[in-house]
Amino acid sequence: MGNILIKGVLLQGRKRDILVTDNIISKIADSIEAEGATVIDGSKKAAIPGFVNMHTHSAMTLMRGVNEDSHLQEWLDIIWKMEPRLDEELIYWGTKLACLEMIKTGTTCFNDQYWMIDTAVKAISDMGLRSLNPYVFLDLFDQTKAEHLKKECLEIYSKSKDWDPLNRFAIAIHAPYSVSESSIRWASDFAREHDLLVHIHLSETKKENNDCLQQHGLTPTRYLQKLGILGPEVIAAHCVWIDDEDIPVLAENDVKIVHNINSNLKLCSGYRFKYKEFKDAGLTVSLGTDGCASSNNLDMLEAMKTTALLQKGWREDPTAMPLDELLDTATLNGARSLGLNCGKVEEGALADLVLVDINNYAFTPNFNFLANLVYSANSSCVDTVICNGKIVMQNRKVAGEEEILDRVNSIYKRLV
Amino acid sequence: MGNILIKGVLLQGRKRDILVTDNIISKIADSIEAEGATVIDGSKKAAIPGFVNMHTHSAMTLMRGVNEDSHLQEWLDIIWKMEPRLDEELIYWGTKLACLEMIKTGTTCFNDQYWMIDTAVKAISDMGLRSLNPYVFLDLFDQTKAEHLKKECLEIYSKSKDWDPLNRFAIAIHAPYSVSESSIRWASDFAREHDLLVHIHLSETKKENNDCLQQHGLTPTRYLQKLGILGPEVIAAHCVWIDDEDIPVLAENDVKIVHNINSNLKLCSGYRFKYKEFKDAGLTVSLGTDGCASSNNLDMLEAMKTTALLQKGWREDPTAMPLDELLDTATLNGARSLGLNCGKVEEGALADLVLVDINNYAFTPNFNFLANLVYSANSSCVDTVICNGKIVMQNRKVAGEEEILDRVNSIYKRLV
Repeated sequence: MGNILIKGVLLQGRKRDILVTDNIISKIADSIEAEGATVIDGSKKAAIPGFVNMHTHSAMTLMRGVNEDSHLQEWLDIIWKMEPRLDEELIYWGTKLACLEMIKTGTTCFNDQYWMIDTAVKAISDMGLRSLNPYVFLDLFDQTKAEHLKKECLEIYSKSKDWDPLNRFAIAIHAPYSVSESSIRWASDFAREHDLLVHIHLSETKKENNDCLQQHGLTPTRYLQKLGILGPEVIAAHCVWIDDEDIPVLAENDVKIVHNINSNLKLCSGYRFKYKEFKDAGLTVSLGTDGCASSNNLDMLEAMKTTALLQKGWREDPTAMPLDELLDTATLNGARSLGLNCGKVEEGALADLVLVDINNYAFTPNFNFLANLVYSANSSCVDTVICNGKIVMQNRKVAGEEEILDRVNSIYKRLV
Repeated sequence: MGNILIKGVLLQGRKRDILVTDNIISKIADSIEAEGATVIDGSKKAAIPGFVNMHTHSAMTLMRGVNEDSHLQEWLDIIWKMEPRLDEELIYWGTKLACLEMIKTGTTCFNDQYWMIDTAVKAISDMGLRSLNPYVFLDLFDQTKAEHLKKECLEIYSKSKDWDPLNRFAIAIHAPYSVSESSIRWASDFAREHDLLVHIHLSETKKENNDCLQQHGLTPTRYLQKLGILGPEVIAAHCVWIDDEDIPVLAENDVKIVHNINSNLKLCSGYRFKYKEFKDAGLTVSLGTDGCASSNNLDMLEAMKTTALLQKGWREDPTAMPLDELLDTATLNGARSLGLNCGKVEEGALADLVLVDINNYAFTPNFNFLANLVYSANSSCVDTVICNGKIVMQNRKVAGEEEILDRVNSIYKRLV
């Protein structure tokens, strides 16, 4: 790692120089000199934090578009037929394809949830991205399977001490409807003992809520509260059907909320996500894309746009999602949920940042940079991506891009 | 104009050669030879029809992002302060900027609705796009203004005989709430006498519907029916608040319907667009982006995506918008509404077509090209655009692009 000096880039409405020293944004000023630094001309660019994608299933890029316009059960049948065919080679190249897409669309950090995490982490590390990689508990109430999962979890946790420090081990409890109570308790205890984050799907569908009420007499949130597993380490994805009494429970426990609007719309899970109520309760709300099998891409700029349009639309309130808050949901709030000092372009923060090309129609005129970014542009405006102080894309060129496309194209048919 | 031969391009799932002779797609076959033709390598590309944007206000690109996250009245106050400052230079370069954006995002034909159409047509013709350019009636119930509009309409209609034949004169009746009954009748009669299309905003907001019911005792649709102006020449934009009794009225009169979901969401007009009911009634439904002052871009790929997500989402039905029908709403249905033989890649059709770059992450793997186009890609996949047999973009390069950005940047501040 060396120094990177970005000259004259638009940052929060002003032309600034930004110096990156090792993996930290070390200085921001009107003019900086730094001998020996790699200089990037920022004169027709704007700097924003790298996006933090808080919910995805990386290697599901391999299943992009495999089933469309069909009901959930048909879709699941197809996915479940494919998943047993996954092997390490498919996971490695599928995860690399996901990282390529994330880099191209400005994401520097993501919360993954998929199989063979040891292999996935190799791919993510090779691509230079920051990630959380939870080991997934999904026992479907089978105690033999549960015992196997616990054993494997311990093994991979042990291996994870040799991982690239950018990629952190965590625990995923798939969902209250797919994991036995004893596994939920074990996984939560293990996470607390080892100071690990916990990722979970929560109240994604109305059916899930109704089933939980029928089975436990409680909403999924209150069922998890009863099990004692809610806490600041819990990152809850979807939260479409959280009710008004769940919100204070989540807030008291400082649970982190992740919104995935494109997936929720496409899978018809619901769209009345209570951003305002979550925010008013003091909850940290971030955005995710979900996986490519359901919502087809990993584009956080698109996630921001659809989130804002839907909040305005279903609330019938044009002030329902101000642009500044929206950017935070895609950057800073995710970083906070992960306990990371990134998601902001500030002195002392981790050097995860994106340079946006503003010399094109989408930023002309440039009355309002954020409005142009979210509502006019698409992610092809992402020109340069720096993660942990290292340039992973410049002029939209990513090392090894052709090889990733070729390798995926040569192996993906094994899935079908 | 000469011949263009596209070799080995993906078309509806097969590798094909496409020959364009003058302004027509003259031949599609497995292998074509054509001496002297301009040859385009289609080996890593797919061919689709050029998009038809059925509702926009081109030169409002100049107001992109000028006011965000605010209520309609505040937004209108700002736009209405700006519009009197528009002059021919602003209209010319604002329209050119719109055309640049449309070309970059794959639109070859559009239905415009804005001021100084004689100047706008010069810009559109210089950019090589196909358009409908209605003269706008908006008298705000002022008879002096109405007389002025009629006079100007006659003058511009007369001038329009010298327009580039790609750009067709038409009539716009702004909306039932903004145009007097006598002007509506005059404009409709004029259109019928001269065989012109008529564009109108219809049932965009709930308030507009309620006001019409209060004033006329009729919905906007039934008010226009009473005036006798509904017919196959009428292209109605928005139609968010069309009720179940309006639908047969629109169907009997073969009125053409235009859906503008991004604008409807952003301005909080409503999102429960009745695509299925319109389709079942035999109505032709097409898509538009609306203008950049309200919905910020002119991206028809994005319009397709948001349309599909919202149809699935609000209907709670994943089959609510099949991909084939969706592509038709963005291409063929618009062409049909305009009475044009474009919007399809078929022998004998007008040569308005787009080559999409499929050698990238968004089309990897390529299980389903249309799903990848709509749900994975963004409009930067548009590589080459041919309009009326002429290449207007190749390798994403448009002639004069830098000049358009520079000119707009040097003049737009006159508006504020």
